[in-house]
Amino acid sequence: MFTINENYLKLQGNYLFSTIAGKVNEYKANNQDADIIRLGIGDVTQPIVPAIIEALHKAVDEMGTEEGFHGYGPEQGYAFLRETIAREDYRARGCEIKADEIFISDGAKCDVGNIQEIFGIDNRVAICDPVYPVYVDTNVMAGRTGAYNSITNGFDHLIYMPCTPMNGFVPELPSVIPDIIYLCFPNNPTGMTITKERLQQWVDYANKNGAVILYDAAYEAYISEKGIPHSIYECEGARTCAIEMHSFSKNAGFTGLRLGYTVIPKELQSNGTSLHSLWNRRHGTKYNGAPYIVQRAGEAVYSEVGKKQLSEQIAYYMKNAKTIREGLTSYGYTVYGGDNAPYIWWKVPNGKKSWQFFDELLEKVQIVGTPGVGFGVNGEGFFRLTAFGTYENTIEALERIKRM
Amino acid sequence: MFTINENYLKLQGNYLFSTIAGKVNEYKANNQDADIIRLGIGDVTQPIVPAIIEALHKAVDEMGTEEGFHGYGPEQGYAFLRETIAREDYRARGCEIKADEIFISDGAKCDVGNIQEIFGIDNRVAICDPVYPVYVDTNVMAGRTGAYNSITNGFDHLIYMPCTPMNGFVPELPSVIPDIIYLCFPNNPTGMTITKERLQQWVDYANKNGAVILYDAAYEAYISEKGIPHSIYECEGARTCAIEMHSFSKNAGFTGLRLGYTVIPKELQSNGTSLHSLWNRRHGTKYNGAPYIVQRAGEAVYSEVGKKQLSEQIAYYMKNAKTIREGLTSYGYTVYGGDNAPYIWWKVPNGKKSWQFFDELLEKVQIVGTPGVGFGVNGEGFFRLTAFGTYENTIEALERIKRM
Repeated sequence: MFTINENYLKLQGNYLFSTIAGKVNEYKANNQDADIIRLGIGDVTQPIVPAIIEALHKAVDEMGTEEGFHGYGPEQGYAFLRETIAREDYRARGCEIKADEIFISDGAKCDVGNIQEIFGIDNRVAICDPVYPVYVDTNVMAGRTGAYNSITNGFDHLIYMPCTPMNGFVPELPSVIPDIIYLCFPNNPTGMTITKERLQQWVDYANKNGAVILYDAAYEAYISEKGIPHSIYECEGARTCAIEMHSFSKNAGFTGLRLGYTVIPKELQSNGTSLHSLWNRRHGTKYNGAPYIVQRAGEAVYSEVGKKQLSEQIAYYMKNAKTIREGLTSYGYTVYGGDNAPYIWWKVPNGKKSWQFFDELLEKVQIVGTPGVGFGVNGEGFFRLTAFGTYENTIEALERIKRM
Repeated sequence: MFTINENYLKLQGNYLFSTIAGKVNEYKANNQDADIIRLGIGDVTQPIVPAIIEALHKAVDEMGTEEGFHGYGPEQGYAFLRETIAREDYRARGCEIKADEIFISDGAKCDVGNIQEIFGIDNRVAICDPVYPVYVDTNVMAGRTGAYNSITNGFDHLIYMPCTPMNGFVPELPSVIPDIIYLCFPNNPTGMTITKERLQQWVDYANKNGAVILYDAAYEAYISEKGIPHSIYECEGARTCAIEMHSFSKNAGFTGLRLGYTVIPKELQSNGTSLHSLWNRRHGTKYNGAPYIVQRAGEAVYSEVGKKQLSEQIAYYMKNAKTIREGLTSYGYTVYGGDNAPYIWWKVPNGKKSWQFFDELLEKVQIVGTPGVGFGVNGEGFFRLTAFGTYENTIEALERIKRM
């Protein structure tokens, strides 16, 4: 009789956002006229900007002609996009990353989920707590953790690095040395950032201890302050210890178009085997490239007019972030984040639990957020709001919260 | 120090089609004026049909408006597409498959590569030989095989099921009972098919022995004869033993658009755990859905005008298949397949080896095919040609072969 991957059974309940969607759907079924404002899942709401729409139409037209048709592309992505990224996201920032070190994919979630496959099962994994659930869940599914421990409320064998108001939501260098370290800055869910100096400490720590850093830079486009790194490759020595993952979802609204990329410098090796070659093998064997038309859309993100239109879109969301942050603060709440990230990390008032507050907000004022505890034990007592709603909804949400 | 997934090191060389691409590029570099005809990789050449181009443009326009913008979709795919598939690919053929048993993805290669993750590492895997390399390679990468054995020219612990002219390229039921069985009909690479009666024997065998069949139906659109099943669910009892994977690449030219789907009936269980729920968890955790615009394109595949345009496209390729099959036969060669599949399995003349013939065809007549041995030991001495070229190139290729 065939057997299943028993590691899946260690997972606790559903994927966080599926659980939220279930609760919201149930509420809607019982309250059909409810005007729900969704500030939960990190999904954007503004349409794709004209420069990208134009690039898509052009690419679609190509696909309908014999000369312009594109079938299987390179699994690693088209050179036109890899070269554009190398130039715009790296060389322009003084980072030495070559086009052939960039792997295009259908989104950062897939890359973040799949990257662990190229590592051994015996590696010890360190994650921030709270954290984007995909880092933990995919390592659980691969068998890189023990069982869920209901005393610690975490998985055995994982190294949890608390991110709390006490440490400014930037974890301390762990005393138990991990092999694989997941970092995400600007952070999801806390909306907080790391300075270049602090990130350099992490790079030095990883190099010294033979660890690899998996750096999720999905929110870098929201950085407005100086001194905050957009890429881990701004730090010296990162080429020998870091993999970086990027999304087109947050900077360009590609949540429904699906595009991302992962950078693996060729120097990054374990006992002479380059991680670049392993990921290249994985991409070639299990993946067939992102759609040509979407890669052309990705290229338009970096055009002059594309950049201008997108900077306005980001400004729009950051105006929402400011509105939420300042609004909640003025009502006497404690909030973090929202300066260089589209997330606001809200300290739940009156010592309430995150899920209790979720239910309360949904039932009393029909606002959907994300319970902090869904991201880990240290998220208990917090609540994540996103700036990705419309401005009108954001204002309305704050009015409702004020009344509550 | 972090460690890598050592299973990757068991893999032999590059992914087959990357090796071929490398050889062709080298030849081109040394022979810049060479007019190469590519009948190797199974990539289509005809442009996307007008009905689908129209659906793409419409969906792109939607994405540029506030009302029509689509962000994150359901990871399992939009209901409009799942319901269309359930109706057109299943209910219309008398198969009882529900929309929520269909998982949309960005291509059959990804699904075929990823599906093994939900099974235990201890399962014994049976594959046809020759076979599409992704089945083998992804199980090697997961650690479900032993080392590569240079005496047997295969991986230890895998159950190889020879497909040869002797058994009509349909394997016998294995005497060593496997847990997981990969089947693909119409077959890649041999282009041969299985009758409903023979497939029913496999379903009965799997149900009796507690095995699961992973059925790759990527080429079903090419079936022209009656009595050949388009889906394994045409067989009685398949709902308790079979997962089926489909591509939009071959029937609708989506190799560069990326769309596929996997069917997991809810009855399919192992000790009370449904594979449907495991795959659902995997899809939710590691994947974020296929692009909205591509799913709309997929829907257009099933529109009346879409179907008509695509049946003409398939007829075009099948005319190529007939041309190759009849041409090679008339020159005295032995060939298989090409009746209900876009592949012709060519017995290499004069006892030559597959790669030797590959080099010879490339150097003498500038034709690229796929060496049969690249699909397994029993492919040695065979050569795969595809019908996916243009008609002009197909005719020209035959002329060149005739001169040779």
